[in-house]
Amino acid sequence: MDLTGFSINQMTVKQLSLPELVKGCVELGVPGVGLWREPVAEYGLAAAARLVADAGLAVTSLCRGGFFTAIDPAERAAALADNRAAIEEAAALGTDTLVLVSGGLPSGSRDLAGARERIADALAELGPYAAERGVRLAIEPLHPMFASDRCVVSTLSQALDLAERFPAEQVGIVVDTYHLWWDDRIAEDIRRAGAGGRIHCFQLADWVTPLPEGVLNGRGQLGDGAVDMAWFRAAVAEAGYRGPVEVEIFNDVLWARDGAEVLAQTVERYRGLLSA
Amino acid sequence: MDLTGFSINQMTVKQLSLPELVKGCVELGVPGVGLWREPVAEYGLAAAARLVADAGLAVTSLCRGGFFTAIDPAERAAALADNRAAIEEAAALGTDTLVLVSGGLPSGSRDLAGARERIADALAELGPYAAERGVRLAIEPLHPMFASDRCVVSTLSQALDLAERFPAEQVGIVVDTYHLWWDDRIAEDIRRAGAGGRIHCFQLADWVTPLPEGVLNGRGQLGDGAVDMAWFRAAVAEAGYRGPVEVEIFNDVLWARDGAEVLAQTVERYRGLLSA
Repeated sequence: MDLTGFSINQMTVKQLSLPELVKGCVELGVPGVGLWREPVAEYGLAAAARLVADAGLAVTSLCRGGFFTAIDPAERAAALADNRAAIEEAAALGTDTLVLVSGGLPSGSRDLAGARERIADALAELGPYAAERGVRLAIEPLHPMFASDRCVVSTLSQALDLAERFPAEQVGIVVDTYHLWWDDRIAEDIRRAGAGGRIHCFQLADWVTPLPEGVLNGRGQLGDGAVDMAWFRAAVAEAGYRGPVEVEIFNDVLWARDGAEVLAQTVERYRGLLSA
Repeated sequence: MDLTGFSINQMTVKQLSLPELVKGCVELGVPGVGLWREPVAEYGLAAAARLVADAGLAVTSLCRGGFFTAIDPAERAAALADNRAAIEEAAALGTDTLVLVSGGLPSGSRDLAGARERIADALAELGPYAAERGVRLAIEPLHPMFASDRCVVSTLSQALDLAERFPAEQVGIVVDTYHLWWDDRIAEDIRRAGAGGRIHCFQLADWVTPLPEGVLNGRGQLGDGAVDMAWFRAAVAEAGYRGPVEVEIFNDVLWARDGAEVLAQTVERYRGLLSA
């Protein structure tokens, strides 16, 4: 199995510098990378774009915009400005996809529906701005365990309800196995997303327990957990998705290991699980 | 606001012995308790039933049956036998409700649909057995973060899909705010559950972050978190539910405190949030 379409998200091997990541990808034949704004900014936006392009790597996505749920007008304005910057950075890096983590409940609020409406308001402002720059916004539904503090969009169905208010070239969704594997409506939601041309990003991570304190950095290496990766890959393909398959794992144990070794292991796992 | 219908689940103040719990309830005017099998067995089933009845307390539920997802025939048979015992214990304690935690994925399995079908098979065997003894089985959907290792039933909609295969006097569901608060379909699912006479138990706990390692014992005291308790109380009432409101909190910090004090605080929080 060749690695066409495979992409490694930078966060999976965040112990690697950007040049180390690029070198590792070239050596292993990995054709794409998903990047994050903070390490890109640290290296320099233009320099990062040049480094990746010179190596022949595709930038499959940029993480992340979002955090749209603030009520305070100044906070909202700051969030919108920051998202416009993120859109420009995506364009500069040559990727057409900005991943959105939409935001949790504001402090003291219990109004999930209101928070979701404020996300829609932000998308209405940012969607045209993104499309003019060749960038699509991709709403990432996060696991319900993040609903209060990180993202009130918890299912693919909710993400589609939001995205479908806008043209698909402005707003779509992310299918991330880690966040969605448990949902018995996932098959029909993936069909719905594919039919509307809304699958703008497809990410893999496995579900393993016990979850660590804070639950953020306990995602599993492919094959270590409960997720049927081949099923997800087939489901998005049957729904018409032909884009990259990005592996994005947040895991303290993987981060403590040698980054090149983790990258090679991830490629091996991907081959083993998805070439069958 | 009087405390008619209020119930304290034993686990909320598990540092109290059964006699201490009963004494605390009588002193505060708490009319009901939800019990757990292990502490009841430790005190003695008949003695526990007598102690609670003599104090005039209602037993609003027994926790817990379930763990139906094993594939191995011997394990399945053991689970069914254990559930028959739990049903008999519920009847002996004078409660009509046995709460079910249905079970996670068997080791190495990634087949959520198969696991859910094995739950249905078990309910078909146990439902009539329970009803003959005046006990209703109550499927508790657990938060999706427990899907792999504790309960593959993650939403109220899924729980109803299972329960509705059986008569309501055999199988219903639990509405627990902690597990269900994030779900945008919860209003319609509660209406559906109420219309079918399926709400067999209603439990309160709040959602607070950060979650602790293992995520089991980080439930919040009423009012400390993201859950709109008054909304839930109104929703089940509008759906026709007239049964008890049980507070069930698993929290290491609360357990480290004086149990009588936690009981009194819980009563105060309940009055404050639900009498408005």
